[in-house]
Amino acid sequence: MSRDALTKIILPEDKIPKYWYNVQADMPNPLDPPLNPRTGEPATPDDLLPIFPMGLIEQEVSQERYIEIPQEVREIYRLWRPSPLYRAHRLEKALDTPCRIYYKYEGVSPVGSHKLNSAIAQAFFNKIAGIKRLTTETGAGQWGTALALACRVFGLDCTVYMVKVSYEQKPYRRSIMETYGATCLASPTDRTASGRAVLERDPDTPGTLAIAISEAVEDAASRDDTNYSLGSVLNHVCLHQTVIGQEVKLQLEMVDEYPDVVIGCCGGGSNFSGIALPFIPDKLAGTNVRLIAVEPAACPTLTKGVFAYDYGDQAGFTPLLKMYTLGHDFTPPGIHAGGLRYHGDSPLISRLYHDGLLEARAVFQKNVFEAAVLFAQTEGILPAPESAHAIRAAVDEALAGKEEGVSRCIVFNLSGHGHLDISAYDSYLNGRIEDVEFSDEALAESLKTLPQV
Amino acid sequence: MSRDALTKIILPEDKIPKYWYNVQADMPNPLDPPLNPRTGEPATPDDLLPIFPMGLIEQEVSQERYIEIPQEVREIYRLWRPSPLYRAHRLEKALDTPCRIYYKYEGVSPVGSHKLNSAIAQAFFNKIAGIKRLTTETGAGQWGTALALACRVFGLDCTVYMVKVSYEQKPYRRSIMETYGATCLASPTDRTASGRAVLERDPDTPGTLAIAISEAVEDAASRDDTNYSLGSVLNHVCLHQTVIGQEVKLQLEMVDEYPDVVIGCCGGGSNFSGIALPFIPDKLAGTNVRLIAVEPAACPTLTKGVFAYDYGDQAGFTPLLKMYTLGHDFTPPGIHAGGLRYHGDSPLISRLYHDGLLEARAVFQKNVFEAAVLFAQTEGILPAPESAHAIRAAVDEALAGKEEGVSRCIVFNLSGHGHLDISAYDSYLNGRIEDVEFSDEALAESLKTLPQV
Repeated sequence: MSRDALTKIILPEDKIPKYWYNVQADMPNPLDPPLNPRTGEPATPDDLLPIFPMGLIEQEVSQERYIEIPQEVREIYRLWRPSPLYRAHRLEKALDTPCRIYYKYEGVSPVGSHKLNSAIAQAFFNKIAGIKRLTTETGAGQWGTALALACRVFGLDCTVYMVKVSYEQKPYRRSIMETYGATCLASPTDRTASGRAVLERDPDTPGTLAIAISEAVEDAASRDDTNYSLGSVLNHVCLHQTVIGQEVKLQLEMVDEYPDVVIGCCGGGSNFSGIALPFIPDKLAGTNVRLIAVEPAACPTLTKGVFAYDYGDQAGFTPLLKMYTLGHDFTPPGIHAGGLRYHGDSPLISRLYHDGLLEARAVFQKNVFEAAVLFAQTEGILPAPESAHAIRAAVDEALAGKEEGVSRCIVFNLSGHGHLDISAYDSYLNGRIEDVEFSDEALAESLKTLPQV
Repeated sequence: MSRDALTKIILPEDKIPKYWYNVQADMPNPLDPPLNPRTGEPATPDDLLPIFPMGLIEQEVSQERYIEIPQEVREIYRLWRPSPLYRAHRLEKALDTPCRIYYKYEGVSPVGSHKLNSAIAQAFFNKIAGIKRLTTETGAGQWGTALALACRVFGLDCTVYMVKVSYEQKPYRRSIMETYGATCLASPTDRTASGRAVLERDPDTPGTLAIAISEAVEDAASRDDTNYSLGSVLNHVCLHQTVIGQEVKLQLEMVDEYPDVVIGCCGGGSNFSGIALPFIPDKLAGTNVRLIAVEPAACPTLTKGVFAYDYGDQAGFTPLLKMYTLGHDFTPPGIHAGGLRYHGDSPLISRLYHDGLLEARAVFQKNVFEAAVLFAQTEGILPAPESAHAIRAAVDEALAGKEEGVSRCIVFNLSGHGHLDISAYDSYLNGRIEDVEFSDEALAESLKTLPQV
């Protein structure tokens, strides 16, 4: 097929990957183990069993290169997978670049983002473990929405602890979760000890993601029929997202392409893992593909953080993970890409970045929205603010190619559409988006709270 | 291909239709001509030229069966067309029906609805006529969004007169239009004589679609570089939407199916036309396919209206159209499917319904949302409230098949997703949706205002 003939490169349903790709099998240096937060010793499967099913714990530590995707999960993936790979003809033309730009569009999932790839898998493995109910936390709402649908699909109850300020400011997100049958609670609640403790100190607290995590974990740990589910960071979540990059490789082959640059936005790391990790074996075998993680300048975990053991939550309940972190006490400003405000980063991404296999860059919000509007006006799709970070980097790469007179193949992950984030565009169009310079002093303060290991 | 093997039936890009299907060539009885509202005589192309380009006027009256889709329009269609046809395996299972249910998903368009099929065509024909700017009105915002993107694609300016109450209640819709570069004004404005006249009488008016139409038409008629654009009702709009049904026929052939029932929601008629009209030749040739238009019980144009000449707008500026109408003075209650609140119906649909080639049924809001939630929980996609009317009818047909023990092939048009209409779901889930009995007295009053022809 001529690479210029098509706009959408579509795979048939029988090309939905049959395996998830586990990068742990190929990493030059293995992951440091998670540590039990109380003992400081490596966490055992038994430490995790109160809140995760064995199927996912096994994936978390597996060293097998390929892990079979259960037939039941692939059946559900068929509702939107394989997702299309687009050639951005009209964006290229607007940039007058010699580069070829492709984007993988995960916004075709029913919930509008890539999050469903892992939510379906997690709900399934909990279902077969006999679990009846899942809890999770959500900030912006993308993950909660995905898990709500996934639970409905497998007949599980779902309780989402939604940060109170988001619960009140984003009633639409809550309504979608409720439409899928989930129970959505404004966190902190009076249902958990950790929630009650916070409410006692500060009855009017707007809540934080850290508190919501504590409540969701406490809820899950306290009931035998209930587990906890996380939408990013962990190895098994990144694993599930590798269907994205595997499909991209097949789709590029169909038009006789191989990427020079692969780009994804990076918060907790699941979306970037999805598109980038399947290229790691090629990179280890000597290809020159560059893998670029794009993070907000307001929360520059990879580019300004340190590689150290830290808690996954602010309260220090979770196992310690070796990762790039700004410190679990770091509070990023309220940027519009809520999904990229995590203080840490996936241990997998962190290790590979530390070992020089990945690149990272930080971009400012205003520049991100500038690229997002250009993309919407040329390609039509209104991108999620998170995904627009990847667009910014892709545009910059395409402009660099133009400057150098080089035609490169640039691929990025458009992880979701922005129809549920339109207030962010309203803020941008009306000049209400400010970029805050990152404070090295605040970072230094936050890093002082890193646990001593 | 086995009809049960697939979830999505996908056509390659080169199967995007090359022609629009013009049902006027096949109608047993021709359309009655539109009448000049001042003279009562048949409107001439000259009557329409101040606000429409000749290319669209020709389509409005053409008797050719196939009208070529310009290459430039097909290029843009490639951004989302051909759209997928889904087999609703999971919905079928939930209903325990022997019927096979398929849905054509137009929500994959960048603006999330079928409206873009005509917006792109209209912007193109205005562009080649030398027009620099289009005006339109919008209520719920779907059409305005589509025209905003279409104008951006062809480098036209776009001004959308948005009913003031929607402008204030749906700021997100406005932000999308502005992201695409359109100017969005709260109607009535002080920019037009008709707007100023209304404001003088009632400075605090919430506005109506009728006033917005008057403003958009006045604006277009007063400037040589500006035309007016309408998102439904007219023949050329219905024509453009026939890409939907033509693709459906090819997709069903791929799985060796032919429908027993074809269903679309029906407001002005463009979406129903899109899926239903391409089946008219088959029906005339003797196949038994049933074509069902579904309208809200609150605005039952086909099922309770009369077939008569009426104005397209409330103020009586537009040509008189022979159509099913509730009277141009009819004000339907504020239901959540804003796109289905039009007092009249497309003359094409009206004539074919009058001649017995189409069926119609009216459904209540609560039943519509009940079906919408079942659909979301099984198929994943959150449907637009308008599209959910078609789901309601499809579910009822599938349940009837179960009752009768008959396996029928049921196809409906899922014309858009509901990510921009979530407040409607919130109302439904919280018991705030009321069904109002249709008032025959109000209808009788409204019909008294029909123009005498």
